[in-house]
Amino acid sequence: MEKKITVLPGDGIGPEVVASAVKVLQAIGKRYNHEFQLSYAAIGGSAIDEYNNPLPDETIAICEASDAILLGAVGGPKWDNNPPELRPEKGLLKIRKRFDLFANLRPVKAIPSLLGASPLKSEVAENVDLMIVRELTGGIYFGEKHRDYGQASDLNIYTREEIERIVENAFELARLRRGKLCSVDKANVLETSRLWREVVEEKKELYPDVEVEHNLVDSVAMKLITNPGHYDVVVTDNMFGDILSDEASVITGSLGVLPSASIRSDNFGLYEPVHGSAPDIAGQGKANPAATILSVAMMLRYSFGLQEEAAEVERSVSAVFDDGYYTADLAKGNSRTLTTDEWTDRVIAEIDTN
Amino acid sequence: MEKKITVLPGDGIGPEVVASAVKVLQAIGKRYNHEFQLSYAAIGGSAIDEYNNPLPDETIAICEASDAILLGAVGGPKWDNNPPELRPEKGLLKIRKRFDLFANLRPVKAIPSLLGASPLKSEVAENVDLMIVRELTGGIYFGEKHRDYGQASDLNIYTREEIERIVENAFELARLRRGKLCSVDKANVLETSRLWREVVEEKKELYPDVEVEHNLVDSVAMKLITNPGHYDVVVTDNMFGDILSDEASVITGSLGVLPSASIRSDNFGLYEPVHGSAPDIAGQGKANPAATILSVAMMLRYSFGLQEEAAEVERSVSAVFDDGYYTADLAKGNSRTLTTDEWTDRVIAEIDTN
Ligand SMILES: CC(C)[C@H](C(=O)O)[C@@H](O)C(=O)O
Ligand SMILES: CC(C)[C@H](C(=O)O)[C@@H](O)C(=O)O
Repeated sequence: MEKKITVLPGDGIGPEVVASAVKVLQAIGKRYNHEFQLSYAAIGGSAIDEYNNPLPDETIAICEASDAILLGAVGGPKWDNNPPELRPEKGLLKIRKRFDLFANLRPVKAIPSLLGASPLKSEVAENVDLMIVRELTGGIYFGEKHRDYGQASDLNIYTREEIERIVENAFELARLRRGKLCSVDKANVLETSRLWREVVEEKKELYPDVEVEHNLVDSVAMKLITNPGHYDVVVTDNMFGDILSDEASVITGSLGVLPSASIRSDNFGLYEPVHGSAPDIAGQGKANPAATILSVAMMLRYSFGLQEEAAEVERSVSAVFDDGYYTADLAKGNSRTLTTDEWTDRVIAEIDTN
Repeated sequence: MEKKITVLPGDGIGPEVVASAVKVLQAIGKRYNHEFQLSYAAIGGSAIDEYNNPLPDETIAICEASDAILLGAVGGPKWDNNPPELRPEKGLLKIRKRFDLFANLRPVKAIPSLLGASPLKSEVAENVDLMIVRELTGGIYFGEKHRDYGQASDLNIYTREEIERIVENAFELARLRRGKLCSVDKANVLETSRLWREVVEEKKELYPDVEVEHNLVDSVAMKLITNPGHYDVVVTDNMFGDILSDEASVITGSLGVLPSASIRSDNFGLYEPVHGSAPDIAGQGKANPAATILSVAMMLRYSFGLQEEAAEVERSVSAVFDDGYYTADLAKGNSRTLTTDEWTDRVIAEIDTN
């Protein structure tokens, strides 16, 4: 298989973790005989510095010519006081909208050897294996905004079609997992939520094998902490998904290893770690590349349909953790602390020697 | 002091926990020589049954003639499929708006003897002592809603004045506590949040003794779990406050003991437990009245300015926990399980004998 991948290293530790993930991707290419052609482009703060635009036209053109995008992270104190249009995260919002990446998938799975780092009791966090499916190109993020001196507003708006496609996506994912779907809304208050709930009720007729529940966002915010093991696939809108997926990212203590995918209907997608650009540790070999490497696994699975290759990346990452090797963020006293590169080499060794 | 209080027992365990809280209130009245006159009225599901209206005019009239409101809880499966206007929680939304109860205060404090019930590790939860201040009468809850077949929308809208009064309220509270205020918004996406942030920046000039930080809602959703001890006062809008206050309510394992206040500028207020109506255990003497009793303490403090009386209620509740007495929800094997009434009598005994 031949695939073109746009690589957007971004800011802070972005370039380091992306470099690691690219090495792993190339190892997979070699082992399974695929050719991955990489093109690099700018996004976020570094794009602002170079092009005065967090998502330059050059970057868009390169992404358009490719089959998938691998992103590091964007942002840093340098750009914190920029006007809204010249902020690094504007590049993220724009690329999502520009490429219609409406389905954001955020899996959270407990890794037994990392549970010590969880704020939750081990018995609460140990069986967590969930996937948050967040609508990413609609809702209050992209609705009309108004402002005059005395008041401000944001419109939360969803069309039926926007809801249908993300809900279908979530049903399909649930079917491939444990067959459970929790749809999250605020139907006792919001009209968009009432439409959302109707769409889920309609779609569920087509997926009799999936068990569906509706739950209110405030209630899910609680249950994600008291009983996270309850959840399989959780589907929700852009704003609730932003909050709940970040909340969910801390329950297993492994924020540094969580990947994400943002996908379009034709499986074109953008893959990036959940963690941020961590400018404080950039360039020191301290960054944990696991989340970006696992994002590559998601790319192999969801954009390229390469199930075996994806599983091999995931197995290799787990094996290195099981052997007790960690980067600084996860290492505790008696475990072995490796640099970003050393840790990446261990993963690659797993792939080569298997 | 003479005060008129409207009592709204509501549904499920509402009547039981309210009966307990009223007994404690009367004990305080006796001990400190105050006269609390009670008038009972209907809200929620029971009001729908009796008046076909979750907030009948009769109830409004009685509330108008009083100095504060004590509420149990509303809701239950019986009314779950009612149309939006005839749902129990509509009574809550209406009473908040009707009486301009814009400041919702939700304190969360770790009780050492209850930490075993927390989903968080004890070392994470043990120092928690925070107060979420939620704007309760504006934002997306009350903005215009639209719906036609193909789309739905909700308007999130705030005036400068609405933000100013809740932010001032939060600054005043922070000043009386540890002097730290975290303002939560989504200023990288929402226009209402950008106005919110500006107002906080302006107001902070008037409170040089309060240390202010701005934080994004997704980031706070994480940090409330990884480092809840960081927070003192947290102020945010109606929708974010709904989610974050419920999330915060589970961190100490003591949801059954959390009170809340919803207050107007002149200190008129509505007081209610954070927990719901728990129809499954209604009428069995299993309900935990602590949250409603502590809501009475908030009433004494915030609506009546009776600091000593409020502190006495709180001290009595703590003393009963410290003695190892619990209702069924919190009791573990070796502790003593009391019924709602028995537990309430212990609290009253503390007050009388002190
Ligand atoms: C940076 C920000 C605009 C973005 C969002 O809110 O979507 C981020 O929090 C995320 O979740 O990817
Ligand atoms: C019942 C519901 C409308 C209400 C809200 O969302 O405000 C509840 O969740 C609360 O927090 O008091």
